[in-house]
Amino acid sequence: MAHPLPDTSKLCVHTITTKPWPIETAIERFAAHGVKGITVWRDALAGRDIAATGQRMRDAGLSAVSLCRGGFFPAEMEAGRRAAIDDNRRAIDEAAALGAPLIVLVCGAVPGQPLDVSRQQIREGIEAVLPQAAAAGVKLAVEPLHPMYADSRSAINTLAQANDICDAIDSPFVGVAVDVYHLWWDPHLQAEIRRCGEAERIFAFHICDWRTPTEDLLNDRGLMGEGCIPIRQIRGWVEEAGFDGFNEVEIFSTRLWEGDQETFLGRIVEAYLQDS
Amino acid sequence: MAHPLPDTSKLCVHTITTKPWPIETAIERFAAHGVKGITVWRDALAGRDIAATGQRMRDAGLSAVSLCRGGFFPAEMEAGRRAAIDDNRRAIDEAAALGAPLIVLVCGAVPGQPLDVSRQQIREGIEAVLPQAAAAGVKLAVEPLHPMYADSRSAINTLAQANDICDAIDSPFVGVAVDVYHLWWDPHLQAEIRRCGEAERIFAFHICDWRTPTEDLLNDRGLMGEGCIPIRQIRGWVEEAGFDGFNEVEIFSTRLWEGDQETFLGRIVEAYLQDS
Repeated sequence: MAHPLPDTSKLCVHTITTKPWPIETAIERFAAHGVKGITVWRDALAGRDIAATGQRMRDAGLSAVSLCRGGFFPAEMEAGRRAAIDDNRRAIDEAAALGAPLIVLVCGAVPGQPLDVSRQQIREGIEAVLPQAAAAGVKLAVEPLHPMYADSRSAINTLAQANDICDAIDSPFVGVAVDVYHLWWDPHLQAEIRRCGEAERIFAFHICDWRTPTEDLLNDRGLMGEGCIPIRQIRGWVEEAGFDGFNEVEIFSTRLWEGDQETFLGRIVEAYLQDS
Repeated sequence: MAHPLPDTSKLCVHTITTKPWPIETAIERFAAHGVKGITVWRDALAGRDIAATGQRMRDAGLSAVSLCRGGFFPAEMEAGRRAAIDDNRRAIDEAAALGAPLIVLVCGAVPGQPLDVSRQQIREGIEAVLPQAAAAGVKLAVEPLHPMYADSRSAINTLAQANDICDAIDSPFVGVAVDVYHLWWDPHLQAEIRRCGEAERIFAFHICDWRTPTEDLLNDRGLMGEGCIPIRQIRGWVEEAGFDGFNEVEIFSTRLWEGDQETFLGRIVEAYLQDS
């Protein structure tokens, strides 16, 4: 079991966690609370000068941890798959402009299309954009998603599958994002985290909690400590596997977005130190 | 891929599928629609003479396929675990009185209790009631539940885990229930169904569909054909593994319960023949 986190030096918060805030407010308030990293969701950049936003982050003392999200490669028609590849190319340009070293991939799935077909399309999509990513110095993290998203969001639902696709692609620019929400239930999690570590491919670590009952499949995630995920134990496994990057707080919650975001951010810092 | 089902001779419907109906109505209408099997949820028996209800089912030409549900063995306190065992003993008595040869086990989980601890308690619970089940001639089916229920409903979330616990207990009275809703996403499903077949432990096969979007974690299952599950393909795997029992329609759906149940039952028969 890992020790409690001593301070906020590795605390990163996703812009979507405090979704009601424009990114300028998020940058200012994150920095004021001692947050040191920021992961930017692409919708938060709409209408902004991306390079200037990256500069604003750095001026506030925030590291750009990653850009969320690329992926969604599968489509039944080739035109759809080409459009997805084009969109991922734009994401790489955006990450480079922002100064973010990583794009998180929500890989995609098409309801009714066999999952193994989607997985093949995911692999082909990643391979199509990989040269541009490598040239830009931007890494790509395959994020396995919880099996409840296998219908329409990701055909990659376990860390074993993410490791398999990384093995197949075999590039230092392609690794994984380990998110406790998606993976906590998996009996092979510890072993697969070790496998990730041996391949030096843990590119990101995301935390939040699983509430009982969970009232919405998408937007009812909990703050750390509000649920049943053994976050600290999983963090220990990730650290033993050699990961020493940011712990990223990624919470989608209608309930928490409805409250005062300044209070919520204070609770995030508290829960990060006590329950992560 | 399996052939379409030629008729309703292996169609079983769960009483909870037409939840608004009292069991007497369900028995009559199931029989009228050519349904040949019935799986009885224990709440449907409340206030009834169980043996007489079993007789009524047989008189209507319906086979008692199973009783739902036993299980929920894990608890933090020993008193809770003892109470669960007592309740499972009552379920065995009820199944015997009803004439049902099988009890489906929703194995249980406790939010915050490590999943491996819950799994050990599940094994101990099954072993505690097993002599009584065997004496009564009632089999027990471990039903692996979707990982989205790992917090509070089942610490057994893949067919591999169900096979493992059956291997450990090693009794001809303990097998598995394969439910497409819980297992369709699993890349090891076909191999684990084959493993089940080799051990002759596929005791039940449950069907319904996964809707996109799914709006509720519990009660938004779809009628076969309304979603993305490759039901016929999975049925083919189960049949190749030697299963020749009933195909059980188990749908929890607030949406479908709100409509006319007679119409719904007609749609079930149609979907069974076309999309299962």
